[in-house]
Amino acid sequence: MVTASPLTLGVVGGGQLGRMLAEAASPLGVELIVLDPTPDCPASLVARDQIIGDFDDEDAIRELAKRSDALTFEIELADPDVLEAVSDEFDVPVHPDPATLRTIQDKLVQKHALQDRGIPVPDFRQVDSREDLLEAGEEFGYPMMLKARRCGYDVHGNVPVEDEDDVDNAMSQVSGELMVEEFVPFERELSVIAVKGDDEVATFPVGENVHEDEILRQTVVPARTTDDVRERAEDVAHDVLSTLSGRGTYGIELFEGPDGHISVNEIAPRPHNSGHYTIEGALTSQFEQHARGVLGYPLGATTLRGSIVMSNILGDVDEPEPADLSGVEGVLSTPGASFHWYGKHNVRPLRKMGHVTLVGGDDPATVGESTLTELHGAATDLTDSLTFR
Amino acid sequence: MVTASPLTLGVVGGGQLGRMLAEAASPLGVELIVLDPTPDCPASLVARDQIIGDFDDEDAIRELAKRSDALTFEIELADPDVLEAVSDEFDVPVHPDPATLRTIQDKLVQKHALQDRGIPVPDFRQVDSREDLLEAGEEFGYPMMLKARRCGYDVHGNVPVEDEDDVDNAMSQVSGELMVEEFVPFERELSVIAVKGDDEVATFPVGENVHEDEILRQTVVPARTTDDVRERAEDVAHDVLSTLSGRGTYGIELFEGPDGHISVNEIAPRPHNSGHYTIEGALTSQFEQHARGVLGYPLGATTLRGSIVMSNILGDVDEPEPADLSGVEGVLSTPGASFHWYGKHNVRPLRKMGHVTLVGGDDPATVGESTLTELHGAATDLTDSLTFR
Repeated sequence: MVTASPLTLGVVGGGQLGRMLAEAASPLGVELIVLDPTPDCPASLVARDQIIGDFDDEDAIRELAKRSDALTFEIELADPDVLEAVSDEFDVPVHPDPATLRTIQDKLVQKHALQDRGIPVPDFRQVDSREDLLEAGEEFGYPMMLKARRCGYDVHGNVPVEDEDDVDNAMSQVSGELMVEEFVPFERELSVIAVKGDDEVATFPVGENVHEDEILRQTVVPARTTDDVRERAEDVAHDVLSTLSGRGTYGIELFEGPDGHISVNEIAPRPHNSGHYTIEGALTSQFEQHARGVLGYPLGATTLRGSIVMSNILGDVDEPEPADLSGVEGVLSTPGASFHWYGKHNVRPLRKMGHVTLVGGDDPATVGESTLTELHGAATDLTDSLTFR
Repeated sequence: MVTASPLTLGVVGGGQLGRMLAEAASPLGVELIVLDPTPDCPASLVARDQIIGDFDDEDAIRELAKRSDALTFEIELADPDVLEAVSDEFDVPVHPDPATLRTIQDKLVQKHALQDRGIPVPDFRQVDSREDLLEAGEEFGYPMMLKARRCGYDVHGNVPVEDEDDVDNAMSQVSGELMVEEFVPFERELSVIAVKGDDEVATFPVGENVHEDEILRQTVVPARTTDDVRERAEDVAHDVLSTLSGRGTYGIELFEGPDGHISVNEIAPRPHNSGHYTIEGALTSQFEQHARGVLGYPLGATTLRGSIVMSNILGDVDEPEPADLSGVEGVLSTPGASFHWYGKHNVRPLRKMGHVTLVGGDDPATVGESTLTELHGAATDLTDSLTFR
């Protein structure tokens, strides 16, 4: 039941995803309270209130639940056990389902869950010792991708293993429980932003992700691939959705192999960086969809408004320093470009500080690859022109 | 100089215009502090902070100025003298210029200023007595429009005078200083949202306003008129802009006469209800433009994303009561429809509570009148389906 009386959404995490969620929730009449350990976190500007506390601080989450009509999270570090407990205690729904969060938090469990449902994933195995990793090398061949099963806050969890001699070095770079995956010689990385509502699902058009040093740089939409691949990617996304429990927006990262084969790389149980383009690029943004989904409101249309490229503004600094970005005039005066600043006070090397989107004039149904490549170049140039002094 | 360090915009007024301004300012990294007498005013949800005080409370405005990098207002009831004084005292710029606010606040002075610059306006004259009104009747003929020169908060300031016998009745319905205007037998009411930046101006495409009981119901964009009329309306809007001092978004209401003659009805020195369509309908919204303009940032592109209709959600109640809107599901599940709720706790008869926009699939450069009429009907149906219980 949709109501115009203000509903309060309690959100674990108050970073840029929480900020853009608050920007999108306000027109719906939905208020946010965010829980984040950093005072004056990005979302605090536009949220009704911030509770200062760690993502797994039980007392803080209880306070959040007490003041909220529904709970969600914008960071995987949320604690599923605590969320489950407070949901029961205060009779406040949590979406996505904490069980889904628990599955996704452990990349090994996540991969098993997908594999068990017949969803294509790269070959993988658990790694408890260097012997396990060496055995995997014999089975998969090199290079392989060694991964921390659980991601810490801002911890770099993926390390390539180039050959047998690289095994010890790779293992020294990651910590905690480990897994390894075969290296997928992908043509491109794709992603589908998918939403579960109340007895309905919606997927946004397939985006193409450009990474560098394992960090997302740009998303190009529509993806520069074939209709056939796009359809298969959407099919896989729908299969993935059917394995997940609880409403809201999910980011599904995919590999497109050289033969057009689609496999699932990773799932995020929240709005995703590769879906930021939807704010200007689609009739409903991934953030509005998340608010709608979590609250059980009808989902919106995911139709593209135009071809579009999102480009991240990353910290181009060597050491942490106060954030002071120059060159924004150039972005603001470019027709079709939109600037998004996350309000972080300090910039760190490769930290996500904001993003730029650039909308092209071409119909996304017929836009050609070379036009998208030009748009990609123009959007990249815009963010390259921004520097932290 | 655009900076990514957070700038604070101090805003006199915290209603729906302030709320949508805050929603639009956040991606730019711009924080709002709003001054409004109503605790928990609409803008307070997404603003950094609210100062509770009257729009002309000098102490409150001083506090606002002390905490802000620039000042603006979203309501004509702001006090230009106080704004001027605190601007000088704290060396904080105010936009638009308080002198422009002062001119616009008095509709008689506003009309004189336009007339002096050769801008077409309906015939008008000052009314200090019933004799003045009767004389105007002889000069202009009946009906005429009697207007309060200054608008109070939520005061209905315009009253038609049907004939000589209606003069006393009309004068009893308005208060304060008065003026009268000839009745313009307009074909349609148009408006142009116009923006002054730092050495640049921008205008949005001409919208067509549908009023009922002198309250805006819908805006249809592009206006269902000829290219020729549209061009003249834009020319007049540019002439009007040249008479105004200070940066920011202005709403310029126009009449289109039966012969296509354009005259100026009224100017608002702020974002305007007839410009709400720009949030979904244009590459940059009137609210983002206002923030950009006031801060001296480059203005954005005003290109339409599609043909679009905005329809107001007005209080359909007989008496004030707590706001409890039903039927929102229908809006949310309509492709291309967007819902905007202002977060007012109480509904009053004809109070502006929110709005709906509906984007059409047609190219705004070629869309036909009948398609726009259908879109207008569909948007109207959507808001008609919403009721306060």
